[in-house]
Amino acid sequence: MKEFWSERIRDMVPYTPGEQPRGRTFVKLNTNENPYPPAPGVVEAIRDAAGEGLRLYPDPECTALRQALAAYHGVTPEQVFVGNGSDEVLALCFQAFFGGERAIVFPDITYSFYPVYAALYGVTYRVIPLREDFTVPVEQFLGDNGGVLLPNPNAPTGRALPLEDIGRLAQGNPDVAVVIDEAYVDFGCESALALLDRYPNLLVVRTMSKSRSLAGLRVGCAIGSANLIAALNCVKNSFNSYTLDRLAQAGALASVEDEAYFQENRQKVMATRARTAAALEQMGFTVCPSQANFLFASHPDHSGKELLDGLREKGVLVRWWNQPRISNYLRISVGTDAEMDVLLSALRELL
Amino acid sequence: MKEFWSERIRDMVPYTPGEQPRGRTFVKLNTNENPYPPAPGVVEAIRDAAGEGLRLYPDPECTALRQALAAYHGVTPEQVFVGNGSDEVLALCFQAFFGGERAIVFPDITYSFYPVYAALYGVTYRVIPLREDFTVPVEQFLGDNGGVLLPNPNAPTGRALPLEDIGRLAQGNPDVAVVIDEAYVDFGCESALALLDRYPNLLVVRTMSKSRSLAGLRVGCAIGSANLIAALNCVKNSFNSYTLDRLAQAGALASVEDEAYFQENRQKVMATRARTAAALEQMGFTVCPSQANFLFASHPDHSGKELLDGLREKGVLVRWWNQPRISNYLRISVGTDAEMDVLLSALRELL
Repeated sequence: MKEFWSERIRDMVPYTPGEQPRGRTFVKLNTNENPYPPAPGVVEAIRDAAGEGLRLYPDPECTALRQALAAYHGVTPEQVFVGNGSDEVLALCFQAFFGGERAIVFPDITYSFYPVYAALYGVTYRVIPLREDFTVPVEQFLGDNGGVLLPNPNAPTGRALPLEDIGRLAQGNPDVAVVIDEAYVDFGCESALALLDRYPNLLVVRTMSKSRSLAGLRVGCAIGSANLIAALNCVKNSFNSYTLDRLAQAGALASVEDEAYFQENRQKVMATRARTAAALEQMGFTVCPSQANFLFASHPDHSGKELLDGLREKGVLVRWWNQPRISNYLRISVGTDAEMDVLLSALRELL
Repeated sequence: MKEFWSERIRDMVPYTPGEQPRGRTFVKLNTNENPYPPAPGVVEAIRDAAGEGLRLYPDPECTALRQALAAYHGVTPEQVFVGNGSDEVLALCFQAFFGGERAIVFPDITYSFYPVYAALYGVTYRVIPLREDFTVPVEQFLGDNGGVLLPNPNAPTGRALPLEDIGRLAQGNPDVAVVIDEAYVDFGCESALALLDRYPNLLVVRTMSKSRSLAGLRVGCAIGSANLIAALNCVKNSFNSYTLDRLAQAGALASVEDEAYFQENRQKVMATRARTAAALEQMGFTVCPSQANFLFASHPDHSGKELLDGLREKGVLVRWWNQPRISNYLRISVGTDAEMDVLLSALRELL
């Protein structure tokens, strides 16, 4: 029943995003959304942009947004690329930088979209096992690779690498692109942006979905040398000239402009994370040290699947993977303090 | 200076969209935008959707929008795919249906993005010359092709094929996908949707950019058998699970719901097109019979480039291609009556 399908997609297994429930109201801790609303200026900017101007194409270069991001991060606009969510930016990276004879490398436990991109674009890859404690064995990422892809902090573990190790990765793979996926970086991890001046092969990918509470707006970006950004533009302009609509450009720009709100928001999330991690540990959970807006935790006496199902029955959604090494873990997004209290009581009842 | 670029993109020449001018105000007849605003309900729906909900991911299935489009076109939701503009939908078609050993076919004069997609996704193609009068020689599209891609009406000529010929295309290429790009269909051309029941290999691609005045919102769709739509979903979910943000989904849905506004809008454009075509012919232009929201015209005494530059100096943007067979033609989008009057006076001065 796959008549007319191209050969390349017949055996493909697409990515499965976390459930977006309809109907019943859950405490939704399964897709790492931010529990707080976007900055007030975002909504205002979108409402202003929602007018007659919608009949006109958006700026394909996203000039104003790129300029704002460049100023914010202390780079030039030619070093900034924006896309329709960081998932799109990552997909374009596969086409722009990867796919030669040598395999690219990424960890065995990581964002589960990576192998899917590789299958779609025909990129060979090799996974490198994380250590037992889920830390990244950096030395194993150095060598004759076709490219490197690494989230920092990693997902779904939440563990972060120090800047020094990111530098080793870039230096140890000097002739290929090293892509650091910083989707969760704003929750306490050092950014590789500080290393861009030293490594022309280093690309930092980011999203506004998490720390800027804009998952519903679909805005991601990449920052690196102008040469790497030109490659992304080449792919983008061979695929879809206008990936960001007028409203997304306007809203994202307004978010960048409200620094105070951004800082307050991420501090709140980090404080709730610390409080929740401590409570989970008190209940006997092993909790990975997290620099992200989620916690990765397992319990010695209860399987991951059992807790997933039990929580769902009690109206709390978290995420679980039926996958070697981590099938006993739950990934729990950090919500508000009140939401985490619901989670913690539900877990207390289940244990 | 293409260090780190993947082999596949080093020689690629991206698509060049029509200019989106900044600064000076032009009468903008170069990118086939609709001169009238979107339906009033669109703006209202977007303003309603622009709130705290932006912190949450959008519905990756775009359920409400797909249901509305299905009801509107008399098909099931499983027969509808939506994407981030029809450019994205077309790009996904290349991956979903094309790329085997046999070349796909499209006309020599057509949407200039097609060969760019083919280069990006490694799809071999063969162009089939239009007849001297820019009509499509359907018989030459029948045979051992790897797929068929045809805009109806064609761009930039504006000429349309009757339904019967689309049927011949689908029937004459029974084992591959036949993709009809109906970006401009609402301006007077028969839609191939009427043939879907008979041809499981027929896919209709559409956009809300033109006839629904939503170029700035980036919404396109594909309609066909559930099997073809499943292939598009397989590619989409291997590339970017959430291609339509919350605002685009809400705005597009509201547009579908205002049928009266839609009908009035397209009638106005068609009336202005007829009036403008007549005036151009009176000035000595040869004007292609157009079923689209643009006119394709050439003058015996003045080159296309000369008129393009002259019009620009007078503040009117139109589109021109430095390409064999059509380098003496201008493509002129249909604006308001007042805008077309500016165009016509400018041309009168130039001739």
